[in-house]
Amino acid sequence: MLINSSRLLSDFNALAQIGSTSDGGVNRPALSEAHLEARRWWLARAAEAGLETRTDSAGNCSAILRSPTRPNGRTLLIGSHTDSVPNGGQYDGALGVLAALEVARTIKEAHLALPVHLEVIDFTDEEGTLVGLLGSGAMAGNLTADGLRAPRGGRAELEAGLVRAGLTEAGLLTAQRDSQTLAGYLELHIEQGPRLTQGAFAIGVVTGIVGITSYRLTYTGQANHAGTTPMESRADASLGAATLILTAREMVIRDYPGCVVNVGQMAFAPGAFNIIPGEARLSLEFRALDPKQLAELDAALIGLATVIGRQYRLKLEVEPVGEYPPAPMGQRAQSAIVSAATSLALSYTFLPSGAGHDAQSLAPLTDAGMIFIPSRDGISHSPLEFSEWEECVNGANVLLRAVLKMAEGN
Amino acid sequence: MLINSSRLLSDFNALAQIGSTSDGGVNRPALSEAHLEARRWWLARAAEAGLETRTDSAGNCSAILRSPTRPNGRTLLIGSHTDSVPNGGQYDGALGVLAALEVARTIKEAHLALPVHLEVIDFTDEEGTLVGLLGSGAMAGNLTADGLRAPRGGRAELEAGLVRAGLTEAGLLTAQRDSQTLAGYLELHIEQGPRLTQGAFAIGVVTGIVGITSYRLTYTGQANHAGTTPMESRADASLGAATLILTAREMVIRDYPGCVVNVGQMAFAPGAFNIIPGEARLSLEFRALDPKQLAELDAALIGLATVIGRQYRLKLEVEPVGEYPPAPMGQRAQSAIVSAATSLALSYTFLPSGAGHDAQSLAPLTDAGMIFIPSRDGISHSPLEFSEWEECVNGANVLLRAVLKMAEGN
Repeated sequence: MLINSSRLLSDFNALAQIGSTSDGGVNRPALSEAHLEARRWWLARAAEAGLETRTDSAGNCSAILRSPTRPNGRTLLIGSHTDSVPNGGQYDGALGVLAALEVARTIKEAHLALPVHLEVIDFTDEEGTLVGLLGSGAMAGNLTADGLRAPRGGRAELEAGLVRAGLTEAGLLTAQRDSQTLAGYLELHIEQGPRLTQGAFAIGVVTGIVGITSYRLTYTGQANHAGTTPMESRADASLGAATLILTAREMVIRDYPGCVVNVGQMAFAPGAFNIIPGEARLSLEFRALDPKQLAELDAALIGLATVIGRQYRLKLEVEPVGEYPPAPMGQRAQSAIVSAATSLALSYTFLPSGAGHDAQSLAPLTDAGMIFIPSRDGISHSPLEFSEWEECVNGANVLLRAVLKMAEGN
Repeated sequence: MLINSSRLLSDFNALAQIGSTSDGGVNRPALSEAHLEARRWWLARAAEAGLETRTDSAGNCSAILRSPTRPNGRTLLIGSHTDSVPNGGQYDGALGVLAALEVARTIKEAHLALPVHLEVIDFTDEEGTLVGLLGSGAMAGNLTADGLRAPRGGRAELEAGLVRAGLTEAGLLTAQRDSQTLAGYLELHIEQGPRLTQGAFAIGVVTGIVGITSYRLTYTGQANHAGTTPMESRADASLGAATLILTAREMVIRDYPGCVVNVGQMAFAPGAFNIIPGEARLSLEFRALDPKQLAELDAALIGLATVIGRQYRLKLEVEPVGEYPPAPMGQRAQSAIVSAATSLALSYTFLPSGAGHDAQSLAPLTDAGMIFIPSRDGISHSPLEFSEWEECVNGANVLLRAVLKMAEGN
């Protein structure tokens, strides 16, 4: 049993037109006009296929294939998201949603009677232009009014998006689903990294989604005249920031293999050619798959930042910005993906996801799994995002067969 | 012979009120209303003292004590500037202008017949909120229409300032003075550094003003996902910038004693927590007293930046931003200051000026000298700028006696 690859391609090209940019990317930030248009188009495609459609109070859009034999059966969720980062690519999210729809159509056409309801879902705001994992977080009951007060995309933008979509904050806070009703969650996604391409694997079986901890650090020394202050008398905040960048990287490579660290933002103040930086503000973000390792890395990096501050006579302020715990993928889901890839004679490897995904919201509730396919040069969140169409079809077929395998146990 | 310290103090306090800020500083950017008010007040004080006043086509304000014996004699210039950086201190520039006025008054009251005209001068825009060394540069013939097209303070701000002051660009370009008419230039200024305080010296005899070279450097790598891109696969522009900050400092301390280097500006792009910096833009500024050493330091730092780029697989762009050559002070001027300090039993030391001053415009034209007095903690360009009043009076008396010494040879 295989999906209809030309129908999937036709859908893929149609969706890529909605919010398309001149450089071959798409611009569909969550709850923008383009994103809402994409969702209307997608629901219409699902209805055409004879699937039941539904939009919940968090805006999550679903296309449901009811189990003919088990009206009170559990629901197997499959999907991803149709929103994109600003000026993103055609694959991230869109492929997973369309492949899942194609899987449901294929099963429906084959008149296969699954022992579970199959619900294809397009989650709201995975990318975080508003909140991040908003729809899947709402479904998991992770949202609070407090957490929505100052979202990363700005409160005004969130409110405007909700109004455009006909949603309310109260609706976001009451979209939780009972985990007892769920039979699992499967998501197909591009890898967004180089490992599959480098290893020439067709399929990645995701073992878990890394946890992410982030801080804003500020080193404070003494701004001073860059001409008259001898090198030895300076309390130059740039020295702390520069040393942290280099030693944090060395430490992670040496002591925390598989983990990553990033300093993506940096600003010196006052910020003049001829003034010694009295202040250096930087972002620090690091990721680990194992919760214990993430905690150790946290302590090691903050300890390192503190020692460096003392070394250069700088004050260090540490402001926690965010913390996502690691989300291990379910064993049954991983086995179903391995079995599916094997049945299709596709090479596969196990790997963690370094990026966040809706699956991490679902993982604490149900058996969640992710299927990765190669992405060229590991590029994502860019118009240059690209996967060979054959690789996309491979992923969709693995999703189909993993669904059948997951459904079996119910 | 000594200056009248209480009259000088009264002038100092009066001028500090013009453009005063609530934290004890002054805000008199060049050609601002406060600066123009300060200049009107100063010219009135000069006129009250019976000195001839003059404003040239670059806005430089002068108070002149004509030689009674040598109507065709040369002119000995003494002075500094009344403009300040935004939210600067009370001493930088103001002390030098007021002490020079006091010196002229003292000589006039003593009915001393100098063989030179003594011209006290308040130069326009020393600080560079508009152009930098604007008035002294105009007098030295350093300005060009091209150089005024995009001044560091902005073209619109320059034009607005000229209008407020009743000046024109044509006037700036024609304010040059014939060097044959000049007998020398002496300037009293706070050190803006810690050396005099640390060595417990009353007076600094400036040997020269360091040359300054500045660049804007851009390292370009590859912006990428900070979660999915392995540490080893990155082309992280922050690594080049951080390494340059640390190794440039080490190199200057080790190989170029007395020289300084500063990275005062830094920005990473795209500039997100979760994106590896694809670009790091930074300012690089360095100073040396000796022209040969400045050129060597230039080559060494740009070479270092290039090697670092290769090490981390980053492209390096080097954009020259500015170059001020070193300005050695005149031997006669230095001797006159030493002789003056010695006659007053004041301890002194020779030292270079790490900061720019109007004296560097004058040095190629005439025998230029600078007298430094201690500044507390080396702080300047700040409301915290402070020198003990006794130290200011010492400096004014050294200026007086150095003037008498310089005049002798004419």
